[in-house]
Amino acid sequence: MTMTFRPLLASLGVSAALLTSASAQALEVDKAIEYRQDALRVMAFQIGPLGDMAQGNIDYDADEFALRANNLASLAHLPWEAFIEGSLQGDDHGVDTDALAKIGDEWDGFRQRQETFQQESATLAQMVDDGEEFNALRRQVGAVANSCKACHDDYRAD
Amino acid sequence: MTMTFRPLLASLGVSAALLTSASAQALEVDKAIEYRQDALRVMAFQIGPLGDMAQGNIDYDADEFALRANNLASLAHLPWEAFIEGSLQGDDHGVDTDALAKIGDEWDGFRQRQETFQQESATLAQMVDDGEEFNALRRQVGAVANSCKACHDDYRAD
Repeated sequence: MTMTFRPLLASLGVSAALLTSASAQALEVDKAIEYRQDALRVMAFQIGPLGDMAQGNIDYDADEFALRANNLASLAHLPWEAFIEGSLQGDDHGVDTDALAKIGDEWDGFRQRQETFQQESATLAQMVDDGEEFNALRRQVGAVANSCKACHDDYRAD
Repeated sequence: MTMTFRPLLASLGVSAALLTSASAQALEVDKAIEYRQDALRVMAFQIGPLGDMAQGNIDYDADEFALRANNLASLAHLPWEAFIEGSLQGDDHGVDTDALAKIGDEWDGFRQRQETFQQESATLAQMVDDGEEFNALRRQVGAVANSCKACHDDYRAD
């Protein structure tokens, strides 16, 4: 297996020992920033149709809504491990980031924002599973969006 | 809600009506290509530590292994909806892509590769849940990696 993995992982664009230990601290900072930006864009892609349906820009489609809500809930925990020390604005790294330096002074507040977003996203997916009506789902999309905005307002560059 | 969503979604980088209908055909091609590339990188980020543990590049850590295996299984279905007509190499769009034009002649074969990968990833996560030993998990990482490689060999540019 050792023989076959290395070229495969290289072909995937994954450097061997990207993580040199299991702890988040050991993530390479540049890779961490790129990863969280990728993950946040993948989340935004799910939120887009939910917002468009909630706003009436596109027709409500129950299957599409359910797909996006479930995708979002399963993604909602991903990006946060990559907001590590040394990866914020003003730190000495090589990637543009909108993550404000104040996150470094307010890790608990930042973590609380993440948890609120994860809870609101999980609630939305649960409401879909429970067969709730579109008007209720629509309001919950608003709660998810507000949880995004609350964190952006505090911790993301304008 | 209509008043509050639009600026929020704009701030998330999500255009209103990114999806003009619920069908995959209506995805804007450039956005679709960027989305699938983001999603594939997020998957690669999870596979990296699994491969490194399987190869012995880093020590086996059961919690880290379980996190990456579960993340991968929950991501494994995401990118494929974005391989849409008009989004392959040689099509008239504005994004560099390694997705070979032959996918367009072999949608069924491409779909089969996706399903194999999703099955192998789901199996890995289930084996973690079942408490299987590292040697068995390690072999299953090999099966996941082979399912990546099989698709890359056939359908991705070198």
